[in-house]
Amino acid sequence: MEQIRVGVFGASGYTGYELIKLLANHERADVVMATSQRYAGQRVSDLYTRPPALGVRGAQFDLTLVDVDAVWAGETPLAERIDAAFFCLPHGESMPMVARVREAGVRAIDLSADFRLRDPAVYSRWYNKTHVAPEMLKEAVYGLPEVYREQIAGADLVANPGCYPTSVLLALYPLAREGRLAGGRIIADSKSGTSGAGRKLRLSSHFCEVNEDFKPYSIGRAHRHLSEMEQELGVWSGGAVRVTFSPHLLPVNRGILSTIYVTLEAGWSVERLVEVYSAAYAGEAFVQVLPAGRLAALADVVQTNRCAISFAHAGGDDYIVASAIDNLVKGASGQAVQNMNLMFGLDEGMGLVG
Amino acid sequence: MEQIRVGVFGASGYTGYELIKLLANHERADVVMATSQRYAGQRVSDLYTRPPALGVRGAQFDLTLVDVDAVWAGETPLAERIDAAFFCLPHGESMPMVARVREAGVRAIDLSADFRLRDPAVYSRWYNKTHVAPEMLKEAVYGLPEVYREQIAGADLVANPGCYPTSVLLALYPLAREGRLAGGRIIADSKSGTSGAGRKLRLSSHFCEVNEDFKPYSIGRAHRHLSEMEQELGVWSGGAVRVTFSPHLLPVNRGILSTIYVTLEAGWSVERLVEVYSAAYAGEAFVQVLPAGRLAALADVVQTNRCAISFAHAGGDDYIVASAIDNLVKGASGQAVQNMNLMFGLDEGMGLVG
Amino acid sequence: MEQIRVGVFGASGYTGYELIKLLANHERADVVMATSQRYAGQRVSDLYTRPPALGVRGAQFDLTLVDVDAVWAGETPLAERIDAAFFCLPHGESMPMVARVREAGVRAIDLSADFRLRDPAVYSRWYNKTHVAPEMLKEAVYGLPEVYREQIAGADLVANPGCYPTSVLLALYPLAREGRLAGGRIIADSKSGTSGAGRKLRLSSHFCEVNEDFKPYSIGRAHRHLSEMEQELGVWSGGAVRVTFSPHLLPVNRGILSTIYVTLEAGWSVERLVEVYSAAYAGEAFVQVLPAGRLAALADVVQTNRCAISFAHAGGDDYIVASAIDNLVKGASGQAVQNMNLMFGLDEGMGLVG
Amino acid sequence: MEQIRVGVFGASGYTGYELIKLLANHERADVVMATSQRYAGQRVSDLYTRPPALGVRGAQFDLTLVDVDAVWAGETPLAERIDAAFFCLPHGESMPMVARVREAGVRAIDLSADFRLRDPAVYSRWYNKTHVAPEMLKEAVYGLPEVYREQIAGADLVANPGCYPTSVLLALYPLAREGRLAGGRIIADSKSGTSGAGRKLRLSSHFCEVNEDFKPYSIGRAHRHLSEMEQELGVWSGGAVRVTFSPHLLPVNRGILSTIYVTLEAGWSVERLVEVYSAAYAGEAFVQVLPAGRLAALADVVQTNRCAISFAHAGGDDYIVASAIDNLVKGASGQAVQNMNLMFGLDEGMGLVG
Repeated sequence: MEQIRVGVFGASGYTGYELIKLLANHERADVVMATSQRYAGQRVSDLYTRPPALGVRGAQFDLTLVDVDAVWAGETPLAERIDAAFFCLPHGESMPMVARVREAGVRAIDLSADFRLRDPAVYSRWYNKTHVAPEMLKEAVYGLPEVYREQIAGADLVANPGCYPTSVLLALYPLAREGRLAGGRIIADSKSGTSGAGRKLRLSSHFCEVNEDFKPYSIGRAHRHLSEMEQELGVWSGGAVRVTFSPHLLPVNRGILSTIYVTLEAGWSVERLVEVYSAAYAGEAFVQVLPAGRLAALADVVQTNRCAISFAHAGGDDYIVASAIDNLVKGASGQAVQNMNLMFGLDEGMGLVG
Repeated sequence: MEQIRVGVFGASGYTGYELIKLLANHERADVVMATSQRYAGQRVSDLYTRPPALGVRGAQFDLTLVDVDAVWAGETPLAERIDAAFFCLPHGESMPMVARVREAGVRAIDLSADFRLRDPAVYSRWYNKTHVAPEMLKEAVYGLPEVYREQIAGADLVANPGCYPTSVLLALYPLAREGRLAGGRIIADSKSGTSGAGRKLRLSSHFCEVNEDFKPYSIGRAHRHLSEMEQELGVWSGGAVRVTFSPHLLPVNRGILSTIYVTLEAGWSVERLVEVYSAAYAGEAFVQVLPAGRLAALADVVQTNRCAISFAHAGGDDYIVASAIDNLVKGASGQAVQNMNLMFGLDEGMGLVG
Repeated sequence: MEQIRVGVFGASGYTGYELIKLLANHERADVVMATSQRYAGQRVSDLYTRPPALGVRGAQFDLTLVDVDAVWAGETPLAERIDAAFFCLPHGESMPMVARVREAGVRAIDLSADFRLRDPAVYSRWYNKTHVAPEMLKEAVYGLPEVYREQIAGADLVANPGCYPTSVLLALYPLAREGRLAGGRIIADSKSGTSGAGRKLRLSSHFCEVNEDFKPYSIGRAHRHLSEMEQELGVWSGGAVRVTFSPHLLPVNRGILSTIYVTLEAGWSVERLVEVYSAAYAGEAFVQVLPAGRLAALADVVQTNRCAISFAHAGGDDYIVASAIDNLVKGASGQAVQNMNLMFGLDEGMGLVG
Repeated sequence: MEQIRVGVFGASGYTGYELIKLLANHERADVVMATSQRYAGQRVSDLYTRPPALGVRGAQFDLTLVDVDAVWAGETPLAERIDAAFFCLPHGESMPMVARVREAGVRAIDLSADFRLRDPAVYSRWYNKTHVAPEMLKEAVYGLPEVYREQIAGADLVANPGCYPTSVLLALYPLAREGRLAGGRIIADSKSGTSGAGRKLRLSSHFCEVNEDFKPYSIGRAHRHLSEMEQELGVWSGGAVRVTFSPHLLPVNRGILSTIYVTLEAGWSVERLVEVYSAAYAGEAFVQVLPAGRLAALADVVQTNRCAISFAHAGGDDYIVASAIDNLVKGASGQAVQNMNLMFGLDEGMGLVG
């Protein structure tokens, strides 16, 4: 069986590089092409001092970064050069390239938000842009394998979920699909490590501005990830679900912890939640339902593709669901690899840490 | 005018030492006695490498720590030795000593929880102890100067509020006293720096266990500070208020940020909240109501006695109040100094940073 | 007695803002003018969330930042607007402005390196620039008050020492002035918090690149601060002194710790070093000579204008001198205030924490 | 081929747990026994929230910890229960157990210092203890595979090197074995993450005491690891080598960076150092000699078994060698696995990240 030849569009950010590191340990995939506007001409290994998590110093780190124009200018048809393309680009920049790659017949996994929202009008409202490939939104599958495994297996275009939405959606799916959240209001108080803000230079990511500080940002109904959360919860619930989403910036490199407040009908308990979730996620390699009394922590999941989910009773019919993921792994590049595995019929966990 | 002679019971923890540092810059108070079971015989300056925040290397740092038994054994009546006693001791250990000091006619400020709850039965329920001086609970004033300024000025015993309650109560007082919270449910998602867990040795405060981690603890209805919050909000609201309180441990030294979710009646807006809060806290040196669009952050308040309060709209009639304090200053020793200033008729801000 | 009116050129970097915070607590100086190219039109308080260290929220934080061109364009002669000018600008940008301000008859304190080196050829070699005001180098006094107190008191132009040189020079001055280092070789292994790299955006100051990392940079004979160290040690020693200087980047906000290796003649001991240093620095408010057995630590000095100095025996005639300062205070803005105090005949420690 | 059955003595510290995590990914070894005095009766997975680095949640994490007495009390001969024993115990506690295990015919890898020094008198001097098994010191091989590969392959008892010595010795071996250091003096200024101080509770490892601080400790000739460094450098050099060793405590979880100062004969250059080291370490999977101009950093090696080595010229014949390792991997448990692989004839890098 031949190796899957992978192209990474946008290799120099945190998710791009995490992806390359993960694929360096993937026995069936090879990164054979990587683009970067800024670092074109340099080698992948020049970009970072941070080492491969699993340390395989393979050929992919010697790859020379190319400008994306060089990709389009190549004479050999793209489909003869790569089998899968990952897009680790900013929102808006991704969609025209995804369209072009799909036209060339190459399967695509987009880590931006460009193909996550089913309705182009909703996309325009939240992202302040007209969608350039609205017809492709129907084709795109929302890449949450625990929910859409079969569709992903048959997809040519997967929209990899956002980091915050992954942490919130996995924490609510077992309740939502039973209609427990319909009509209700969810509060998701989320805290993310600084890599979630990307590698772009901005004062708010300067070490001295983040270290020893902690703060909310884009709270209320301001953060774009809200649209994804409400879309999926609405579909699963069979009715609109309103989410109050409060992101905060944590002085750590990696990890998202979401503390989520829900009100259920009478008759629930932490024990019942553990049972229902354990059943819903039975056989899932990357979801860990914690027993009553134990709470999720970043340290449980950092450097893994795992989502840990835990529960507490808040009195009456109020419950708290606390979930933790690594924003760069299950929240981005790890989940993207999981999706690739499904799309290419491989073992779903190949190259991933559970 | 003579100096106020201060005794500090329990000087070696983080709040005890913070108090001594603050008083070192207080022009009207001198620490003349400091106890420590563990470090008796050593000097105050031996305890810490961390320097005085304001650097006055005064006589208080040369003070020799004494065992508390030496205090009781002293021949001179206590009231001739000190004018004010601060208690920086664990819950339960404080109350018999406070009683003894009050008997001796010395004014007391207790930083433990022992005199914060008005009902000894509630105290027993939350702290698993019978109160040894229930009759003194009536005498004790809850030391939140922005609410109880006059009572504190006339008090001989002040129960200094907990760190989390200070951050939550100041953030809700203007709404509570107008009855806006009555019958409602409040969710307070709070995050605290590690000094809030004290200087006691425990694995959960080990550097390698805290650094690069973040996690909830005692969520649901488990944390003792809940009792204080519900007591005061109930009194101010004129009716029971139910609080869901979720503390989290932050990998920073100092600071508490509370993200608080409330539902109001129709007709509110962030602008109106700013107005109402600005009016309620007009003239308060230690409360900073932030303008619409700006959110509280730890870095705004660390090393000050200030509480910063900010707002966001969460859709419909749902609002978010985000407040920040330094847990060791406004959340403990700074507020204790503010209370002492009021009790002794001094300028309320003396020795404090606004 | 009238207030000293201060102008700050380059207010938006870490040293500029630290200076404004320190002066906010200075009873005899008022910041009345502050420039920033990038933030002109905004207020000083808009620049930072980090609060004033001592919290005085004075008029200076409401000051509107102006472009430096507006300063030159002002009709009133500069000397009628300000009495003292501080320059918190990059090397090279400072010198023409300092010259202009001095021509206008205003006393200047330059925090850049532009006037630290006595020989313009040495300046050119290390800073790759021709000095634009070489004749002013004679007038400039190297602003290390513990060494040049009298000259500073009579100076109109003070070149404020670099952060690393301050930590190394104070640690060696008592030995150098007795000729103990002449002909010898010094190794200074220094570690600095990230604020030392400034507030400028660069990948190497991104939180995720600094946090959980530690590394040397510009070691060997590469760092420009070497020139200052060798100049002063040479002058004091009466002969060339060769320094090996190894800076490292620490994942903390503030502080420099220098571990310095010296070889002395026979007959020295840690006790004798403590004695000699204590004598040399007797009466110095901002130098703390630690007793034998205690070693300097960042936590001892952060947020103060103090330099802590400590010693260890390394076998034979080899000794280690370890010193610690806050790079933004004694290593920059605090020392600048100390210099201003001397230049204007004020108490040397005014507005500073010892 | 059968699996190697491993017993871990002292599983609850940082090195013990790191070892278990590494072995969880080792295809030829299974941990079948793990002792802990304090946590006996609990499961391995209860000890830590920190997840396995590589995430294999294997059977070893379900193992129940036993008191060491239970090991001795077992009826089946030890050699029928385990093939290899790792000792992650404090100095002094290790030696009697190692002796007992060796008597039982089981191969031992000791991570304590008990078998590192060849001369029991030197051991007594540095560790303040009489050695209980001095005759075994001859049998013990110092477990630095890059130097003693063949001896380790034939050994039944390996003394795993200390973390600091590993970082210093690998950085000097190519010079020492050519006699370049004989008679000379080495200065090693080393900085270690806090896990190096172990998981034991002590105030100096409390989060608030380490975070935002940095300091030297046990400098001069005080740290015990000095004895190992001088022993090995002396053997390789064929003459005594004097080391000045200065350890410092870094506010990061993992990693040691050593900045080492050497004086060579005339005629060296950074380029020649790179050449000589590249030749000396040719074929070594776990030593990375960096090209001229690039310096070692913790981020290059953390979570790997790699030692990165880099060079700078300090003027004249003075050079700087900067090396970096992960103190828990190449500095402890990773190197222990490398040694086990050699002892059992496996691929040296099995289960390790290069």
